[in-house]
Amino acid sequence: MNLNLFIMNAGHHEAAWRHPDTEPHSITDIRYFQRLAQTAEQAKFDSLFLADGLAINKNIKHGAFVGLEPFTLLSALAAVTERIGLIGTVSTTYNEPFHVARKFASLDHISNGRAGWNIVTSGSEFEANNFNKDTHLAHSKRYTRAREFLQVTTSLWDSWEDDAIIIDRASGAFADNGKVHEINHVGDEFKVRGPLNTPRSPQGYPVLVQAGSSEDGKEFAAQYAEAIFTAQQTLAEAQKFYADVKSRLAKYGRHPEQLKILPGICPIIGRTESEAIEKEQELNELTVPEYGLNQLSTMLKMDLFNYPLDGPLPELPGVDEINGNKSRYQLVADLAKRDNLTIRQLIHRLAGGRGHRTFAGTAIQVADQLEEWFTQGGSDGFNVMPPYLPGGLEEFAQHVIPELQRRGLFRTEYAGRTLRDHFGLPRPVNSFSIRSSSTFKEVIV
Amino acid sequence: MNLNLFIMNAGHHEAAWRHPDTEPHSITDIRYFQRLAQTAEQAKFDSLFLADGLAINKNIKHGAFVGLEPFTLLSALAAVTERIGLIGTVSTTYNEPFHVARKFASLDHISNGRAGWNIVTSGSEFEANNFNKDTHLAHSKRYTRAREFLQVTTSLWDSWEDDAIIIDRASGAFADNGKVHEINHVGDEFKVRGPLNTPRSPQGYPVLVQAGSSEDGKEFAAQYAEAIFTAQQTLAEAQKFYADVKSRLAKYGRHPEQLKILPGICPIIGRTESEAIEKEQELNELTVPEYGLNQLSTMLKMDLFNYPLDGPLPELPGVDEINGNKSRYQLVADLAKRDNLTIRQLIHRLAGGRGHRTFAGTAIQVADQLEEWFTQGGSDGFNVMPPYLPGGLEEFAQHVIPELQRRGLFRTEYAGRTLRDHFGLPRPVNSFSIRSSSTFKEVIV
Ligand SMILES: Cc1cc2nc3c(=O)[nH]c(=O)nc-3n(C[C@H](O)[C@H](O)[C@H](O)COP(=O)(O)O)c2cc1C
Ligand SMILES: Cc1cc2nc3c(=O)[nH]c(=O)nc-3n(C[C@H](O)[C@H](O)[C@H](O)COP(=O)(O)O)c2cc1C
Repeated sequence: MNLNLFIMNAGHHEAAWRHPDTEPHSITDIRYFQRLAQTAEQAKFDSLFLADGLAINKNIKHGAFVGLEPFTLLSALAAVTERIGLIGTVSTTYNEPFHVARKFASLDHISNGRAGWNIVTSGSEFEANNFNKDTHLAHSKRYTRAREFLQVTTSLWDSWEDDAIIIDRASGAFADNGKVHEINHVGDEFKVRGPLNTPRSPQGYPVLVQAGSSEDGKEFAAQYAEAIFTAQQTLAEAQKFYADVKSRLAKYGRHPEQLKILPGICPIIGRTESEAIEKEQELNELTVPEYGLNQLSTMLKMDLFNYPLDGPLPELPGVDEINGNKSRYQLVADLAKRDNLTIRQLIHRLAGGRGHRTFAGTAIQVADQLEEWFTQGGSDGFNVMPPYLPGGLEEFAQHVIPELQRRGLFRTEYAGRTLRDHFGLPRPVNSFSIRSSSTFKEVIV
Repeated sequence: MNLNLFIMNAGHHEAAWRHPDTEPHSITDIRYFQRLAQTAEQAKFDSLFLADGLAINKNIKHGAFVGLEPFTLLSALAAVTERIGLIGTVSTTYNEPFHVARKFASLDHISNGRAGWNIVTSGSEFEANNFNKDTHLAHSKRYTRAREFLQVTTSLWDSWEDDAIIIDRASGAFADNGKVHEINHVGDEFKVRGPLNTPRSPQGYPVLVQAGSSEDGKEFAAQYAEAIFTAQQTLAEAQKFYADVKSRLAKYGRHPEQLKILPGICPIIGRTESEAIEKEQELNELTVPEYGLNQLSTMLKMDLFNYPLDGPLPELPGVDEINGNKSRYQLVADLAKRDNLTIRQLIHRLAGGRGHRTFAGTAIQVADQLEEWFTQGGSDGFNVMPPYLPGGLEEFAQHVIPELQRRGLFRTEYAGRTLRDHFGLPRPVNSFSIRSSSTFKEVIV
């Protein structure tokens, strides 16, 4: 079972920062994140993951997703950890492939092969407004760009063959000209000559992670992703998603094991079940309705401020009108309908994990849930989203992980060194090494 | 006296990687750079600096400027150092201000106020070709863009007032809406709404560093820069540059002390003068003529491969035809003429510091030189460029710095915590705090 720790400032519950055991003043303090990373590494998590957005998209009065730029943070964490994978989010919509290829190659060198890239296409108009654009690129256009973006970055990572560096002091030969290649990419979105100015990194490519669950998202994942983060509320839905995505890989010449599916779980752990449920209620009571309404209105692209909190959701727009996060929209709409929730109840249900599954129980019960999903074709592992930090991580590390280890479901020691080792993923073959090098232009003299 | 350490892979001499005491295999190894950073910090350097280019612009057979992306590296170094400033190069021509503002704010948080930004406009066609462009933006256009870029980044750094974060758990107040501002920048190059999604950092802005010496470059520096790296061959030239740049500050309402001028020095240190000169010769003899010719041809925008190595330089194009590094072109052309050098002699003269001053002598002689330039109006300090690493740094730290300390010219302990403290620079006042907040739109609800 693969376990990724999704770190979110004071925790994933939207009221985490109001909880007495969290440290919201530390969200710009590297020592706070160092402690979290080291705790996760001691617990043998495969990886830790940082999300990212490129704008503040709401009223920050009652909390907001702000803080350190995640890639900068990951590199600092690489310097103080040894084994744990480091997955960072970078958008293909508001970046250039040369920069992105280079910084992931560098992080992979610095961490000795522990880099992972959560590839996102960004979802909000507010992000567009910080990058010279009035409107957000359409959903399908974003995925078209993402696909070309991946073509360019993978070529750039291959532009240095593994044995290109010679360093023969006597003859003065530094590198083998014939093993460093221009890529000469010319496409609709990008024109990039290459080669990269960073030699090929330990993993070849960072582990490619993706988190879209729409049709376009799943197809993109089937082609490129090696791990998927996804929000699934029930085992049946998770099984359906799992079978669906895995079945798409063959078309791209890939094996089902080359893609790990990791649904999110926000575990609220108590010594007894009732203690766990009380904890959840305590957190829910700390939420500010105005904040939850704002979140929900953004998610559903509908202003909910004029509807009674204790009444039902109004009629929603169709999913075709959603240009943001299509799959999350669908999940929330389905959840409200299925469980017949009022707006307030829905806000509470989403407070823990923004649509990810929240589960309150004892460590044994949490382990039972994870085992069930894992053994019943619902997942290859989990994206663990502690509701509050650092406590929620410490409880998971101290009580759930040992239980999973006792059941033989989770490692007790790291077997390998790289994130690819942890996930059991192959190192990508260099596309230039396998073709006749004579068909490629050498670097200019 | 302010001392910055300019770290360049195996060292600044172009043949450094062939020298038996260097570690060219370590240029992608974080431990190598950690050792350098820690040595520099023990020696009480104000800062360390990493240059950057966005392409390989030559034959890599005999060496090339390749390796880790510097910003990623700096963040990893922030995690293992405490006091030394960390200056990274980022180009305004091939980046977006939102990303750049955010990553420097993050590095400044992570390092507790030690970030510096070497603002460059990039100089080569090869870089353009990695970013969707066929040709390089004209020199003056690059500076126009740089100026607007700085307007946007400084506004973004100010978009959070220092006391915007409240974190009152009881009332649920996370931040003060009235102290987080949209910037609504609309210009020729950029349209950026803001606010930044990273709170204001310890230094307010990173220390702003600049390294252009052309007319446009000096004017830009006078407006924005707080430190200048520059290549000056003689004290007379340095004095002229110093007086010229300092005199331009008043126009922008700034004091001469608000800008530190740091000429480069590549010190080759021996126990005796003749040992130092032998060292220099040894290094020069390791250069590969083909490599030096390539470098020189690029610098002078002229193919020199068909001219005899032991003959004079041919007639050069005028400086107006140079769209790259105008000031370096001028320096090299003047140097060849003044000292009546053959092409081979010129290559050797440039091998140490690519146009920066190289000085071979004892530690006492090096200290004498630094003292003379510093006390005679040639500089506020130096950009120290060891010819080979780690040895050239260790010699400087063990022999030159103690001599400067004995003379009362350099600190024996860090007095402050931030890079602004080390350089004696003020923390920028927040432009939003000083204007009536009512004239600015608040963050949307
Ligand atoms: C666990 C998880 C983490 C995500 N992290 C980010 C993120 O950091 N930044 C982002 O813009 N989107 C993030 N997303 C959103 C996805 O990238 C994607 O936009 C979203 O799932 C909608 O995709 P779809 O429109 O294909 O359904 C995340 C999604 C999940 C499930
Ligand atoms: C010490 C020093 C370091 C520099 N570092 C970089 C660098 O890392 N990247 C870059 O593109 N240019 C770098 N430059 C070049 C300058 O940014 C600038 O382009 C150059 O000095 C020419 O400027 P000018 O055309 O205004 O004379 C550096 C210059 C100096 C003196």
